[in-house]
Amino acid sequence: MTQDEIRPDWVAVDAGSDALQAWAMKGGSAIATAHKNASLASAGGLGPALDALTGEWMVPDGTAVVICGPVDGSGEALRPVPCTPLPDRLSAVAHRGWAVHAVPGLARKTPADLTQGAETRIAGFLALNPGWDGVICLTGPTSTWAEVSAGEVVSFQSFLSGEMIDLLSSQSSLARFPETDGIDMADFAEAVSDSLSRPERLAAHLSALRAGAVTGALPPGAGPARLSGLLIGAELSAARPYWLGQNLALVGASEDTRLYAAALQAQGAGATVADAGRMALAGLTAAHRLIRN
Amino acid sequence: MTQDEIRPDWVAVDAGSDALQAWAMKGGSAIATAHKNASLASAGGLGPALDALTGEWMVPDGTAVVICGPVDGSGEALRPVPCTPLPDRLSAVAHRGWAVHAVPGLARKTPADLTQGAETRIAGFLALNPGWDGVICLTGPTSTWAEVSAGEVVSFQSFLSGEMIDLLSSQSSLARFPETDGIDMADFAEAVSDSLSRPERLAAHLSALRAGAVTGALPPGAGPARLSGLLIGAELSAARPYWLGQNLALVGASEDTRLYAAALQAQGAGATVADAGRMALAGLTAAHRLIRN
Repeated sequence: MTQDEIRPDWVAVDAGSDALQAWAMKGGSAIATAHKNASLASAGGLGPALDALTGEWMVPDGTAVVICGPVDGSGEALRPVPCTPLPDRLSAVAHRGWAVHAVPGLARKTPADLTQGAETRIAGFLALNPGWDGVICLTGPTSTWAEVSAGEVVSFQSFLSGEMIDLLSSQSSLARFPETDGIDMADFAEAVSDSLSRPERLAAHLSALRAGAVTGALPPGAGPARLSGLLIGAELSAARPYWLGQNLALVGASEDTRLYAAALQAQGAGATVADAGRMALAGLTAAHRLIRN
Repeated sequence: MTQDEIRPDWVAVDAGSDALQAWAMKGGSAIATAHKNASLASAGGLGPALDALTGEWMVPDGTAVVICGPVDGSGEALRPVPCTPLPDRLSAVAHRGWAVHAVPGLARKTPADLTQGAETRIAGFLALNPGWDGVICLTGPTSTWAEVSAGEVVSFQSFLSGEMIDLLSSQSSLARFPETDGIDMADFAEAVSDSLSRPERLAAHLSALRAGAVTGALPPGAGPARLSGLLIGAELSAARPYWLGQNLALVGASEDTRLYAAALQAQGAGATVADAGRMALAGLTAAHRLIRN
């Protein structure tokens, strides 16, 4: 099938904070996918992002586009928990004659919290695991821990740990760590343990990491592992009620879920692991069914 | 006096992680100063940095240059605490025929920690306050709390809080806070209190801050104040043994020391405040005296 023969029935779009992915859909099956290393903001907004993602497909007027992510920054469309991850119906805005349906995020007022895509991954996980109860941890630049019971999100809590790891490892005085092939899991586990026991010392632990790199006391390659371990350990400390003695699922990119799973395993907490993209597509497919009703 | 008449006896240089400052010295007095918004690394190294700073002065061969900061990245010159902030004597390396004397930093092996200029500010503070005992908190991208007794640094602990505030407020998903004229001290105090009582929730507090900005729940202008308060509050939580019931001095830029002083004051801890540049110059002047002995 050549590119110009790709004529989707509908289009699914996952707008993450660091990547955009679209699927050309025929019913419940993806016939093609497109990816951009951009956010909605850096792509120039919703319209230009949709145009860039679907540029090589034939998408006729009237086609439904279902999108999750930070589409509406005003927060007007947010839904207070407890509630089902998806609403009863989706409303549309027009772009190029397409009917664009944005999945509303979940919200808590005090302290302020919201989801911008996590609700759709949760819906996808529940669509693939009917009747599942427990806590879903969605990893990424923002991680979200969501307690799910009887098909509803009962409570959730987000953390900026992933974004802090990204910033500190790329933009900070720690960014001069020598390149490594991967994360040393022993160094990672030690840092998780240090941070879990003294989470308030995060900025001191980070300073020790840099001092170790400057003085040569830090083993080569240990830097990135310890950095991730310190931030994930601090998150586990604050998220303890969400994972201690809970039925757990981890939804994210494989490199992220591997670290969270190892950190949780060291605390005796096992977790089911699921791929973020697959859960997003399942959630968007469930959301697409709401349009027809 | 025109620029080409500036002929220093010696040159004092404070190489900070975000700024370089040099003073043309006649005995104990500065006759001119030069400033660059750069680090030694971004200026191209020690030689080019010295050339750029002193380019408009007449600095003859044999002139002594005394410099503090991250001059020697190898850590070989570090001095384990407890020790006096300055060594007994300074050794020199040559540049352009000048005798460049770098003040060695202080070090602790486990957990790794080091100073790269703080030791010189401490020496300056003690030169101006003879016989002073207590704890000096040196604010900045890296903050250092140093316990001083009988002229020696007994222990110290550094934190990366300042750099995290800078990164999060300029490079992160929080960086879209609307511009403000300054820090709202009530918002700052509330965030310090939140973070002091639950320091392990830093990444959750930061996520709440972003969610509040997205949903409009955060008052305009509260963002930068709460960001600084969360990081400084977490630092105060971990540094408690350094400030609780101690004779305290804050050394830093005025905008930093004002925030730390307010946060400490709310915990009932008063502090003497001193300017970082003035303490650096006093410390470099004390270090210069070591060359002659």
